[in-house]
Amino acid sequence: MKRVYNFNAGPAVLPVPVLEEASKAVLEYGNQGMSLLEMSHRSKPFEKIIQEAESDIKELMGLGEDYQVLFLGGGASLQFAMVPINFLPPGQAADYVHTGTWSKGAIKDAKILGKVNVVASSEDKAFTYIPKKIAFNDGASYAHITTNNTIEGTQFHYEPEVKVPLIADMSSDILSMRKDFSRYSLIYAGAQKNLGPAGVTVIVLKKSMLERVPENIPVMLSYKTHAEKVSLHNTPPVFPVYVVGLVAKWIKEKGGLNAIEKENRKKADLLYQCLDELGNFYKAPVAREDRSWMNVVFRLPSEALEEKFVAEAKAQDLVGLKGHRSVGGIRASIYNAFPYEGVEKLVSFMKVFAGKEAVAGV
Amino acid sequence: MKRVYNFNAGPAVLPVPVLEEASKAVLEYGNQGMSLLEMSHRSKPFEKIIQEAESDIKELMGLGEDYQVLFLGGGASLQFAMVPINFLPPGQAADYVHTGTWSKGAIKDAKILGKVNVVASSEDKAFTYIPKKIAFNDGASYAHITTNNTIEGTQFHYEPEVKVPLIADMSSDILSMRKDFSRYSLIYAGAQKNLGPAGVTVIVLKKSMLERVPENIPVMLSYKTHAEKVSLHNTPPVFPVYVVGLVAKWIKEKGGLNAIEKENRKKADLLYQCLDELGNFYKAPVAREDRSWMNVVFRLPSEALEEKFVAEAKAQDLVGLKGHRSVGGIRASIYNAFPYEGVEKLVSFMKVFAGKEAVAGV
Repeated sequence: MKRVYNFNAGPAVLPVPVLEEASKAVLEYGNQGMSLLEMSHRSKPFEKIIQEAESDIKELMGLGEDYQVLFLGGGASLQFAMVPINFLPPGQAADYVHTGTWSKGAIKDAKILGKVNVVASSEDKAFTYIPKKIAFNDGASYAHITTNNTIEGTQFHYEPEVKVPLIADMSSDILSMRKDFSRYSLIYAGAQKNLGPAGVTVIVLKKSMLERVPENIPVMLSYKTHAEKVSLHNTPPVFPVYVVGLVAKWIKEKGGLNAIEKENRKKADLLYQCLDELGNFYKAPVAREDRSWMNVVFRLPSEALEEKFVAEAKAQDLVGLKGHRSVGGIRASIYNAFPYEGVEKLVSFMKVFAGKEAVAGV
Repeated sequence: MKRVYNFNAGPAVLPVPVLEEASKAVLEYGNQGMSLLEMSHRSKPFEKIIQEAESDIKELMGLGEDYQVLFLGGGASLQFAMVPINFLPPGQAADYVHTGTWSKGAIKDAKILGKVNVVASSEDKAFTYIPKKIAFNDGASYAHITTNNTIEGTQFHYEPEVKVPLIADMSSDILSMRKDFSRYSLIYAGAQKNLGPAGVTVIVLKKSMLERVPENIPVMLSYKTHAEKVSLHNTPPVFPVYVVGLVAKWIKEKGGLNAIEKENRKKADLLYQCLDELGNFYKAPVAREDRSWMNVVFRLPSEALEEKFVAEAKAQDLVGLKGHRSVGGIRASIYNAFPYEGVEKLVSFMKVFAGKEAVAGV
């Protein structure tokens, strides 16, 4: 099995032992005489899988009985609508912090469904920083943030002080660092970055939020439906849920969020250090204190050089370094499962590339 | 690799060659140096996968340029809401045919979102038949049917005559028989019965329907979003889509819907013939002309005997025969990938079981 270093922003690199176990399960799961893909979602083995996935995620987050984990289909983008459908009643308003492409999507849907106050935005500087000292409204239905901005390469490295329920899109940094998760009333995350394959969204919900859910909304759009039926109202995305469960166990075995954070920080430090050292050639646009540990974005002196960089890196099995098509540049996504050696190899490559181009008289 | 005969209603049996190929792809896909689960949904290989899945499904259905296939998350149950959100404007009404558990869900959501006329129902006889000669309203926004009722074991064996767009939940019989699919304006189907694993819903949409989609609805709930971005507005459920593509190719190789229908009919005939022959012991409640070729339901003289039947069958590797918990009894789901030999084995078992119990003096 050949392995490249995969810097894709999502779907993204997964741990090899997880892939090996998942591959076997696609042929046959647990001596059941059938593939995991053929197993009823109401069978005992799958019940065990989904229950363990929930309890492992809660354990990793340090959350207890007052929280519930749900596994839903439809992607994190569906949560842009579900959040206001469930928690933004007519006549009230919700606070949103605007930090990039994904918060833009969340705000757009919320505005269709109710009243929104954008209480802070970093659009004035092309989303290269995270707003601080935000004036949240004490009367808001909830406050919504995007903890890591996959495309812009920024990350909240502090937890905002709010007096209303805090809701966070953690799609690109969930389970990548320690946080006080108990400060959040609802967390949602598409699995395909730090947690597993595409096809499942993990919801971490404070149970008391369910009291706010209105009765008269479509069944599948109600968090109450999914909470009451423990994600089994309809058929959940069985295989993606299973892989998320394997990844949660892999994180536990590595030593939990403490160990994962240490490793992620080490990887990010190595890469940012290289960017700073070679600051005459590479430009990291993000404010230093708001740099993402997950998605490291930078520019080269010209788009032609960026293209050359991506192509030469690819030839050395450093794959997926092209920035998001909406912003260009280079992006190295270094999620939980991305190995330290891959960052080392990238840094070596970057040094050589910059040296070569400097000699060439750029 | 041990294989039982898997009569599960969904997730359900899949073709072995599909499982073998999918298992390999979880380790590495197409010499890419990464698992399919790690591949960007915007990569060339995945673009090819999703485009071929669409064109193969359209080819199997005999549909052309005026149709588009979408691959969405959230399950068929999410379509219960999306259909009225997109196609039931205020002040208008939609026609629904009520034939069991799933139509009940569709009607419930539609009533939350708009005005509904239940133009026919088989609830009077516990959903054991399919209504005929239905008085659809010529002024309805659309007419909605459930072509196969997984739990009740009934199936439309005729296409209703309607003057408005016909919308069908085909979750449990899509691609299992020939139909004039061009009579439908929208078909939706959870993949986990005839098409693939859980986690993706296949939508077959007549493009002209997009003109009816209102602008001001949440992005992920609009068919227009997904149609314009060819299912890539957000990250689709990559692996489930891939497996659906493999299954579509498997059906093509078998000879398309003509061949599949022939085989499905042969399996269903064998099983219903057995039920009719042993009618003193087994009771098939469904009206003869409305019997499902996919989900064969029957009762035994007592619940105790049904329990014994399920347990003894399981001991002989005939698995998943317990009826849905809401109706009880026995259900044998014999979807596309279920082998004829499995039905033969079940029939032999049923004969022996009935004989034994008759001697025992039931």
